[in-house]
Amino acid sequence: MEEKKSFLKQKIDLESPNKNIVPITTSIGGDGKLSVGGCSIEELVKKYDSPLYILDEVTLRKSCRAYKNALEKYYPGESLPIYASKANSSIFMSNLVSSEGLGLDAVSEGELLTALKGGVPNEKIVFHGNNKSDKEIDLAIRNNIKIIVDNDYDLKRLEEISNSLNYDLEIMIRFTPGIECHTHEYIRTGSFDSKFGFGIEYLNNLFASISATKHLKLKGIHAHIGSQIFELDPHKDLGEIMVKVILDAKKFGHNIKELNVGGGLGIKYTKNDDPPSIDEWVETISTSIVEACKKHNLDLPRLLCEPGRSIVSTAGITIYKIGAFKEIPGIRTYLSVDGGMSDNPRPITYQSNYSACLVKNPLNINSKNKYTIAGKHCESGDVLFKEIELANCKTGDLICVFGTGAYNNSMSSNYNRIPRPAAVLVCDGGAEIIQKRESSFDLLRYDILPDRFIK
Amino acid sequence: MEEKKSFLKQKIDLESPNKNIVPITTSIGGDGKLSVGGCSIEELVKKYDSPLYILDEVTLRKSCRAYKNALEKYYPGESLPIYASKANSSIFMSNLVSSEGLGLDAVSEGELLTALKGGVPNEKIVFHGNNKSDKEIDLAIRNNIKIIVDNDYDLKRLEEISNSLNYDLEIMIRFTPGIECHTHEYIRTGSFDSKFGFGIEYLNNLFASISATKHLKLKGIHAHIGSQIFELDPHKDLGEIMVKVILDAKKFGHNIKELNVGGGLGIKYTKNDDPPSIDEWVETISTSIVEACKKHNLDLPRLLCEPGRSIVSTAGITIYKIGAFKEIPGIRTYLSVDGGMSDNPRPITYQSNYSACLVKNPLNINSKNKYTIAGKHCESGDVLFKEIELANCKTGDLICVFGTGAYNNSMSSNYNRIPRPAAVLVCDGGAEIIQKRESSFDLLRYDILPDRFIK
Repeated sequence: MEEKKSFLKQKIDLESPNKNIVPITTSIGGDGKLSVGGCSIEELVKKYDSPLYILDEVTLRKSCRAYKNALEKYYPGESLPIYASKANSSIFMSNLVSSEGLGLDAVSEGELLTALKGGVPNEKIVFHGNNKSDKEIDLAIRNNIKIIVDNDYDLKRLEEISNSLNYDLEIMIRFTPGIECHTHEYIRTGSFDSKFGFGIEYLNNLFASISATKHLKLKGIHAHIGSQIFELDPHKDLGEIMVKVILDAKKFGHNIKELNVGGGLGIKYTKNDDPPSIDEWVETISTSIVEACKKHNLDLPRLLCEPGRSIVSTAGITIYKIGAFKEIPGIRTYLSVDGGMSDNPRPITYQSNYSACLVKNPLNINSKNKYTIAGKHCESGDVLFKEIELANCKTGDLICVFGTGAYNNSMSSNYNRIPRPAAVLVCDGGAEIIQKRESSFDLLRYDILPDRFIK
Repeated sequence: MEEKKSFLKQKIDLESPNKNIVPITTSIGGDGKLSVGGCSIEELVKKYDSPLYILDEVTLRKSCRAYKNALEKYYPGESLPIYASKANSSIFMSNLVSSEGLGLDAVSEGELLTALKGGVPNEKIVFHGNNKSDKEIDLAIRNNIKIIVDNDYDLKRLEEISNSLNYDLEIMIRFTPGIECHTHEYIRTGSFDSKFGFGIEYLNNLFASISATKHLKLKGIHAHIGSQIFELDPHKDLGEIMVKVILDAKKFGHNIKELNVGGGLGIKYTKNDDPPSIDEWVETISTSIVEACKKHNLDLPRLLCEPGRSIVSTAGITIYKIGAFKEIPGIRTYLSVDGGMSDNPRPITYQSNYSACLVKNPLNINSKNKYTIAGKHCESGDVLFKEIELANCKTGDLICVFGTGAYNNSMSSNYNRIPRPAAVLVCDGGAEIIQKRESSFDLLRYDILPDRFIK
C-alpha cells in the first residue's frame, strides 16, 4: 500500500515536464532499480563515478517543444522562446535549445561565449544584466547580439558607441511593471524595489531620451516578474501592462515590434507543488496580449519569453553515494553523501525542498525510515534534506535527487576544494559526457606561490 | 564631525587583528585615498583589475603570532594552533601559516593536496570530515597525516586498513560535547544535533570499541562548538568537559596526549561586533584546561586549536568597481558593482553584514548618501549591502569591502559564468599575485559537446 504514495507512482505528464517531479523517461527496471533515459543509474555511476549530474534529453526536448507548440497554438503573431541560460549554462545546453529552435538569454561574457560556442545564432541571443561591463557590451555589439537596456548607464554607453560608430543600434528596454510575484505572493505596487530595469512610472522620460538619440532604435520591451511562480494572474496582468507600454512608446515615435515577458513559470519539486502547465502559462500570456492588442487596434508584436528552470530543472537529477551514518537517538539519523552544498547550494541558500529516492529501492518498498541527508562539507548547514523517508539503506547505496537541472551546476562552488561533478546526457539507453569531472588537482591550477616564499 | 564616526577612525588593535574591522596596515594617504600594506588600492586595481581580493601579509602574520604567543603565555604544556584551511585554502595560505609555525586542518582531498603543495609538514596536518571518501583516507594514511575519526564509518575503515597493513595507526576522535554555541546563543544540551562527531554520551562504548581493535591507538580528542563566537564561557566549559573525557578514556586504557578544542572565535565585521581578543580566548581555554588537569592530577595534554576566520578574515578585503546606479525615489538607490554573490556568497546565504568604504573617500567626508550595493548577477537576492552610508560616488569609483578574507574566495562560485577574481598579497608597498584571475574562456574548459551534436 505504502508504495502507492510514492511520487514515483504519479502519472507522468508527457506534454509539460514542469508538472512532473521526475524526468519523463524515468522507469523502474525488472530488478526494482531506477533508470533514466533507458540507462541504469547504477551502471552510470559505475562508469562515471559520483556525485553525478544527469540530464535527460527527452525531457529537455519536450520542455522546449512545449513552449514552441503552445506559442504556435495560442499566439497568432511571430514568437520565440528564449532559454534563460543562467539556469544551466553549457555548450551542450546552448546547442540543444538551439536545435529545438529556441533562442538564448545570456547575462555575462561567459554565458555569451558559451551560447556562441554552442552554435546559437547571434540574432537569437539577447543580452541582459543590471551591470554590464564595457567589455561585455563590446562583445555583444561586435557579435550583433541584441542588448536589453537595463538602466541609464547602459543607455548612455550604447548612445556613445552608436554615435562613435555612426551606426543604428536596435535595443530593448527592461522595465519593472509594478508586479511583484513570488511563489505564494502577488503584489501590484507603484514602484517595484528591484535592481533590474526602469520603473514603469519613468518610461515616458526614457522614451523621450531614446527619441533624442541619433542612433538608438527602440525595438522591444522586456519585463520579468519573478521566479518559480505558480499563479497565472500576474502574467495575465503583465500582458495588458506591456501592451499599454507599447502604446505609450508610440506617442514618442517608437515602433515597438517585440514584447518579452520574461520567464518565471514554476516546476514541481515536491508533491506539494502544483505549477500550471507550460501550455496554460503560454495560453494566459498569449491571450492577454492578443486581447489587449485587439482592444487597442495594435498589430501583434513578436512575443518572446524566457523560460529557464521550466526547461531544464525537471530534466536533471543528481546521484550521490551514501557514506557515513550517525544516529542521534530521539533526534534524528544523519546519513552523509559524497556531495552537498558545493554541487547544490539551493537548500542552504534558499531552504529549497527536493524529492529523492534510493536507486535500489525507489518506491521505498518494505520498511521506511526517516533520515536527514547531510553533505560532506565542513559546515553544519550543509544538509540537503532535513527529513526524508527512505527504505532501509546502507553505506554505498545510491540516492537520486530530482529536479536538480536548474541552479545546481550553474551555482556550484568548490567549497572545501571539492571538485565539481561530471554531467552526462542520457537518451535511448546511451549516455554521453557533457561536462568533464573536475579533479582536486584542477582546483590548485590558479594558485601562485610568490618566489620569495619558495625555499 | 561626522567623519569621526567612521570605523576607519577606530583605534587599530595591533595584537589581535580579529578585534579590528580593517587590516592592520590600512591607512589613508595624503590624497585622502585608501591604501593597504603600503599599496594604493587605486594602483592595485589599475594593475590587477577588479573585482580584486587583497590579503595583507602583516595582518595574517600578526593573527598567527597572536595564537602562538598566547598559547606560550598561558599554556605551560605543548601546544599548536592549526589553521582551519576551509576559511581560505590556497598554496599561499598553507605556506604562510606553516612559515609561522602553525599546523593546518584539511577536510578534503583538495585541501590536503593544497596543504602539502604549500609545504605544511605532514605531521602538522590533521584531516577532518563527516564523510571522508576511501580515496581521501588512503591519501591521508599514505602521507602519515593524522585522521580525526568522526563516526563509526571512519572507525571501521581505519580498523580494516590498520589490520590489513598490520600497522599501528594513531587516531583522534571528534565528539559533540553537548555545548551548542552561536554568536548570540549558548546552549548546553545532552545531545548536540550535529552531523559531526560522536555524541558525548556514547564515548564509553567508543572507547571500548577502540580498545578492542588491534592497531588503532587513540591519541587525541577533538570538539568544536561553533563559529563566529563572541562569548568566552562556552570555551571555558569545553576545557573542563574535555579533561573529563580524557579521564574517562583512561579507564579503557587510552592514554590521550592531545586535546583539540576546535576554533570558533569571532571577528569584527561591523562596529556592532565586539569579539574577545585572541589572547583572551586562548587564556580562557588554557586556564580551564590547566585547572581541570590540576584538579584531577593529570599531566597536561598537548593543546591544539583550529582558528580559521580569526586568522584570515580581517586580513582580507575585496575591491569592486561601481557601475550602474538606479534610483527608486522614496525607496532606495541601488549602485551595482562588478562582482557579487559569486565572489562573496555570505550575504545571500547567511544574511551576513560587512563594513565598506569608498577608496577615494574612505571617511565619507562631506555629503553622505544611503545606498544599496547590488552585485552584477542575474538574481534579485544578489545584494551585498542592503543599506550603507557612503559619500557621493559615481560610476568608476572603487568600493572596498572589509573582512572578506574568510569564506569568500573559498565559497566562491561561477554563477552566471562569471570568472573568479584574482587575489594579491600586499606587504611593505609591494604586491604579489597569489591567485590568477579566471577568464570567461576558462569556464568553458569542462564543457563537452558530444559528436552527434556537432554539425
